[in-house]
Amino acid sequence: MIFGNYVHGGDVYKNRVTLDFSANVNPFGTPEAVKEAIREAANDVSRYPDPYCTALRKKLAARHAVLPEHILCGNGAAELIFSFVQALRPKTALLPVPSFAEYETALVAAGVTPVFYSLLREEGFAVTPRILDAITEDTDVLLLCSPNNPTGCSIDRDLLLAILDRCRSTGTWLFSDECFWDLTDADRAFSLAGSLRENDRVLLLHAFTKTYGMAGVRLGYAISKHGGILRGMSETTQPWNVSTLAQAAGLAALDCPDWAIKARTLFAAEKPYLFDELQRIGVSVRYGDANYLLLSGVPTLYERLLEKGILVRDCANYRGLSKGDVRIAVRTHEENAALIAAISEVLHA
Amino acid sequence: MIFGNYVHGGDVYKNRVTLDFSANVNPFGTPEAVKEAIREAANDVSRYPDPYCTALRKKLAARHAVLPEHILCGNGAAELIFSFVQALRPKTALLPVPSFAEYETALVAAGVTPVFYSLLREEGFAVTPRILDAITEDTDVLLLCSPNNPTGCSIDRDLLLAILDRCRSTGTWLFSDECFWDLTDADRAFSLAGSLRENDRVLLLHAFTKTYGMAGVRLGYAISKHGGILRGMSETTQPWNVSTLAQAAGLAALDCPDWAIKARTLFAAEKPYLFDELQRIGVSVRYGDANYLLLSGVPTLYERLLEKGILVRDCANYRGLSKGDVRIAVRTHEENAALIAAISEVLHA
Repeated sequence: MIFGNYVHGGDVYKNRVTLDFSANVNPFGTPEAVKEAIREAANDVSRYPDPYCTALRKKLAARHAVLPEHILCGNGAAELIFSFVQALRPKTALLPVPSFAEYETALVAAGVTPVFYSLLREEGFAVTPRILDAITEDTDVLLLCSPNNPTGCSIDRDLLLAILDRCRSTGTWLFSDECFWDLTDADRAFSLAGSLRENDRVLLLHAFTKTYGMAGVRLGYAISKHGGILRGMSETTQPWNVSTLAQAAGLAALDCPDWAIKARTLFAAEKPYLFDELQRIGVSVRYGDANYLLLSGVPTLYERLLEKGILVRDCANYRGLSKGDVRIAVRTHEENAALIAAISEVLHA
Repeated sequence: MIFGNYVHGGDVYKNRVTLDFSANVNPFGTPEAVKEAIREAANDVSRYPDPYCTALRKKLAARHAVLPEHILCGNGAAELIFSFVQALRPKTALLPVPSFAEYETALVAAGVTPVFYSLLREEGFAVTPRILDAITEDTDVLLLCSPNNPTGCSIDRDLLLAILDRCRSTGTWLFSDECFWDLTDADRAFSLAGSLRENDRVLLLHAFTKTYGMAGVRLGYAISKHGGILRGMSETTQPWNVSTLAQAAGLAALDCPDWAIKARTLFAAEKPYLFDELQRIGVSVRYGDANYLLLSGVPTLYERLLEKGILVRDCANYRGLSKGDVRIAVRTHEENAALIAAISEVLHA
């Protein structure tokens, strides 16, 4: 590794991998219509992209029942984490852990030392009402991820709304990562988009990555009704950060509403299957609300599976997790069955 | 405009344009092999991109006779301007003007107020040895662009090397934008890549945008032999900033060395044609070393051409330039002849 020692899901480039459970993207991959839109847009790349993503923001606004000026597109949701932190420059940031590593990375890059809020293993890493007391008038920003990555826990709707109210009263910015919203079980899926008021200090993060199998394209977006934050974020970023190819792919993806439904239908069968099978073979597993599960207790699981050409997400480098904590994506039945067989072999070798 | 009032070249999305002279990209557009590589890569976008751009950096290193660890790829060269400034966080920055607006934008976004160094109209906006006195031990960074955008002036080789030596002696970082190197007249093209020493405080900026008609793809790269800067820049940026599509396109583009040669051959005929014709019809024009020319003295030229469906780059918002300063790209003979005819009509209307 030359530039940092970071380890991420989906890094199949330096491993010989035949089955990839490390990246929690839609197991059906990319819609054909999205691929076709990229192929078509390849004919038009000598021009600069539309810096305002006009057509895409209009379509996204309609989808989330907000106005186009409430949407800012980015080069993947990850870029928007960095530009949010850089635009806000908080003095204090409250960060529940374990969670997606890029929040901390972005905070540290901006010179902010986060205040960590420990989610407890014995509580299944759930966010509980206890967090309300941790949000004070000294908290500039709270960064949440629901469902959380890599634990799979979503925050109860009523609690999320209570957190929103608490943040309003303390003047705290609420950054809520909803990237897995589309792939979350219907009875647990909840977005704050419908609860935003004008000038709320709230930013919601969404991505095309997971839902439409577009990790390699790079396209995410932020939703906020706050007047200044999206402008501030765009000012910390080059004007042409969203490629022509990504804009075309995003427009095509939004015409594929069935793609997420198809995936959720699969998960409704495959998550219980994986959960039951893992318990049957004696692996500790937490039921997740999105398209991935957190396994624990087999310290060499990552390495032993990699020997078999199966890549899972080693979560040892997540703050609050440890060796043996491993995230697996929920994939097709055939793949899931192969994973169970491989884990079973590892346990009984 | 919602997010800022910036005006850029190539913004054909909000204008009815039949001829675009505003974006200074290769007039032959995108090589078919690059388009084909994008179409092919569209089949592989459900995976995350290689965060290290391993194959691409290896190929770029060979091209510039440096090592792969001396290369950092970005989501267009523009992103690298922002990450350079954010990683360096200079206290003082010397910025010759007029020049590409993103240097100042990136500095201001990082809270740095640049010290402007005026390039003089009466000197054809050339960088002269006078600049050596402006570089002092208090100068943290000097940002140069050669050939400069939008003036087309390149810095004489001997002067550029003298600036390099001066920066070495004052401990000043030298940021040298070489994005137009490939499209510069052979007798004026010079890159500092061959002059770098280990740990030199020098960063060179390159792009695929102009040379290979890839503005819509977003791919640029930095070259530096300094140990820390590339790592620092990568730490201010998300890991997956260069899409799978951009990496594939870049690899294909590097197999098209004739693409720049073909363009330079065209410019060798068309730049003198445009220059002579503009002088003939009475427009003040500066001969440029790259693939664009700066016109002056016709205040309404931008608007009058736009009425005819021809977009040029209005340079009124460049620091040090004013209304009537207009940049035109050098394009194919047919297009150039149409532009001359249109300007002639404007002048004689």
